[in-house]
Amino acid sequence: MAFKTPITVAYGDGIGPEIMQATLNILEAANALIAPEIIEVGEKVYLQGNTTGIPDKAWESIKRTKVLLKGPITTPQGGGYKSLNVTMRKTLGLFANVRPCTSYAPYVPTNFPNIDLIIVRENEEDTYSGIEHRGTDEVYQCLKLITRPGCERIVQYAFEYARKFNRKKVTCLSKDNIMKMTDGLFHRVFNEIAKQYPEIQTEHLIVDIGTALIASNPERFDVIVTLNLYGDIISDVDAQVAGSVGLAGSANIGNQVAMFEAIHGSAPDIAGKNMANPSGLLNGAVQMLVHINQPETASLIENAWLKTIEDGIHTGDIYSSKHSKKKVGTQEFAAAVIERLGQQPTHFKAADYKPGAYAKIECYGDLPKTKSKKELVGVDVFIDNPLDIAADELAAKIANIGVPMELVVITSRGLKIWPDSSIEAPYLRHCCCRFQSSKDVKQLKPINHADIVHLLTQFNELGIDTIKTENLYTFDGELGFTLAQGQ
Amino acid sequence: MAFKTPITVAYGDGIGPEIMQATLNILEAANALIAPEIIEVGEKVYLQGNTTGIPDKAWESIKRTKVLLKGPITTPQGGGYKSLNVTMRKTLGLFANVRPCTSYAPYVPTNFPNIDLIIVRENEEDTYSGIEHRGTDEVYQCLKLITRPGCERIVQYAFEYARKFNRKKVTCLSKDNIMKMTDGLFHRVFNEIAKQYPEIQTEHLIVDIGTALIASNPERFDVIVTLNLYGDIISDVDAQVAGSVGLAGSANIGNQVAMFEAIHGSAPDIAGKNMANPSGLLNGAVQMLVHINQPETASLIENAWLKTIEDGIHTGDIYSSKHSKKKVGTQEFAAAVIERLGQQPTHFKAADYKPGAYAKIECYGDLPKTKSKKELVGVDVFIDNPLDIAADELAAKIANIGVPMELVVITSRGLKIWPDSSIEAPYLRHCCCRFQSSKDVKQLKPINHADIVHLLTQFNELGIDTIKTENLYTFDGELGFTLAQGQ
Repeated sequence: MAFKTPITVAYGDGIGPEIMQATLNILEAANALIAPEIIEVGEKVYLQGNTTGIPDKAWESIKRTKVLLKGPITTPQGGGYKSLNVTMRKTLGLFANVRPCTSYAPYVPTNFPNIDLIIVRENEEDTYSGIEHRGTDEVYQCLKLITRPGCERIVQYAFEYARKFNRKKVTCLSKDNIMKMTDGLFHRVFNEIAKQYPEIQTEHLIVDIGTALIASNPERFDVIVTLNLYGDIISDVDAQVAGSVGLAGSANIGNQVAMFEAIHGSAPDIAGKNMANPSGLLNGAVQMLVHINQPETASLIENAWLKTIEDGIHTGDIYSSKHSKKKVGTQEFAAAVIERLGQQPTHFKAADYKPGAYAKIECYGDLPKTKSKKELVGVDVFIDNPLDIAADELAAKIANIGVPMELVVITSRGLKIWPDSSIEAPYLRHCCCRFQSSKDVKQLKPINHADIVHLLTQFNELGIDTIKTENLYTFDGELGFTLAQGQ
Repeated sequence: MAFKTPITVAYGDGIGPEIMQATLNILEAANALIAPEIIEVGEKVYLQGNTTGIPDKAWESIKRTKVLLKGPITTPQGGGYKSLNVTMRKTLGLFANVRPCTSYAPYVPTNFPNIDLIIVRENEEDTYSGIEHRGTDEVYQCLKLITRPGCERIVQYAFEYARKFNRKKVTCLSKDNIMKMTDGLFHRVFNEIAKQYPEIQTEHLIVDIGTALIASNPERFDVIVTLNLYGDIISDVDAQVAGSVGLAGSANIGNQVAMFEAIHGSAPDIAGKNMANPSGLLNGAVQMLVHINQPETASLIENAWLKTIEDGIHTGDIYSSKHSKKKVGTQEFAAAVIERLGQQPTHFKAADYKPGAYAKIECYGDLPKTKSKKELVGVDVFIDNPLDIAADELAAKIANIGVPMELVVITSRGLKIWPDSSIEAPYLRHCCCRFQSSKDVKQLKPINHADIVHLLTQFNELGIDTIKTENLYTFDGELGFTLAQGQ
């Protein structure tokens, strides 16, 4: 008897159970070599008082099988319940969200009949880390964190994917004309890693233009790699213009564990009615079969599914009098796919995943590391200034407290308000006082952490509420901070 | 003789001079009551060594007239030249970017012939403030700052605009399911201010879904208000799906000064060839006339322009054999508009700006303020951990240095790595050590700034490189910080 790969299965909430059953029926009929272990996660677990929605036993299974096929989850509103997807992504290090987006015209209406693109979205960093602070009555802040290994890993994944799946081009989207350091890093890493894949075309677009092109000309794209937030937005744009929100699957890939699902939600309004379309989850399961190195079974199922769509056997969500022949329920749709196992599509291009070629891709971001010389050269001290003390007056108070540093600039929301400011009505409640070891950024000398402690003590003695600090460093002499607008 | 409103005019770079001349010719022929003062900004000024691209004399004119009509600018690459648009926006407090987006089908091809929406984009805050720091060899950070007055101002502007221009609905886009504090503030302020405009429908969409709907169903929107980054992306999506990138104007509005321009760039490749379409700048000028309370002239020009488009008199960028009658150059197009002054469009809806109703909108975000009770209750100390010291070991070292605070959690990229972490291979180089006055967030007691200084001193003595701090506050007892994933 052939070895069956253990996989963990979570039925999920809402329509989850019925589309999962339909999907598992198809997998079984196709002789997929899998041994499902069922776990319970989601709504029931939340309502038992577990705010993460996932019990320890479920973790144990996932960590052992390293593969999860998951139905959609309902996160209850209020009560501090945490998104299970976010928790899993972070806990399991699922750094890559991989979203194929394909047109199925004319059966699924779209203005773009030839979309065939893959979005590779960074999944762990960006403003999505949930690090937020309120510094004053009025000012809130969210940290956007971007790490070099995080960039390396996701970019490398995109190129490896392109190579293994015979894709021709990888497009990088970022906003480094504005965010020169964070998005700039992503873009630089893209350029560095691209060199290792000379056979693959590369392109970089600023994200606003890139998103506009995904909306207006999605057929020009092949593989897209981008940061978390942009990836979130373009995934939705893309699924919407292709009309495939109800049909697309998605993979969340880590070096150890991978999770596969539909891109749609749990649709509680139609749950239990045998109405839901299982195609999204089924397409996620096809990605899973490729991942666990059962490419022939993946092709078998995908082709039977394409043939079913071509034959006009449609669930209500995509039924139209023009292109459908028969409106069916969830179970009947699955039966129609099973009936067609072994058939090839004639309108759509048949899937043909090559044996052995597409198994798990592990990416560790292994560019050679050079440790740079890091020197502390100053500090940004952010203050709450509730009485709106004017910048000149503030500067007079603190001008001499930073020795051996000098106060070089005071800014508000990144904009210089001292010295020589031309701003007429600056926002004063939240100010950043920048102290450097020299006014001239070309003459910076190292200082000590103790100098910063001393400076903060002086602020305290003046009764000024320092709300946060950001140390200023150079790395091999290069500035590790942006200059203020006007500095 | 009627009083002429002084306005400042910058011809700009590339195609700027010719489209500005065409625009001014039309304004003059329409008897717009304006007295232009010409300033020089942009490429020439940059190349004379002024990195801001704008000399003092130009500032003087803008601050006096308070109205700027600006051609597109070329920012030279490299050499630290700063975007003139960003500088102006920030220096002049132009907090609202107002972008009408309209279909001109069939003359301009689009899948959506009935788009008629206005994007009101916050212009000063978000990750666009340019506050970036590199804390370790590998980790870069950008600050997303959102202020309550900033939110109030832009939301109020959107509603005032809707009221004055007889719009029916305002849609708010944010991502507060992820960024609960920053984007959450924007959403809350939207809800608060909406109450003052009971006659206007409101709607809130998560930005990814909202952007997808702008791409796939833009005709459903009326006025959209959103944060800076999202506004940047959706403006491009929207102009692209309407096909109006070459035709749309844009206003940047502050309480004192306003700036009007085309949304396209300086197109140096076709500069000086009498080929450019002046429509974008002309539509910006129409917004300007409304702003300076010359609504009849605005209607006169807009209608002549619509008639010209309808009559098939087109520059090369929108010329098609099907819908155009005559291909013309920049000057001839302007002449055709002038010829039609006084005519009404028949295919398009005629403009009819009401006298007096649409003058300058000033917004100060004047919701009643209640000063909350702010208490310091802890601090997040971010450290560089280049030797990858394990979280347990790190915790053992620093567990007792924070008195009267306790170490409650260590996180990496927002994810708990101590205590009781289930992460298998956490990222250790950049850690956040959270100290609170009590482990239980319901039992937090006030501490002093001196306690934080003391803690930092202890870190220094242990030889740990603290790279930044974020104080933890409560406001009227409510937490001013998010809990870590897993805390």
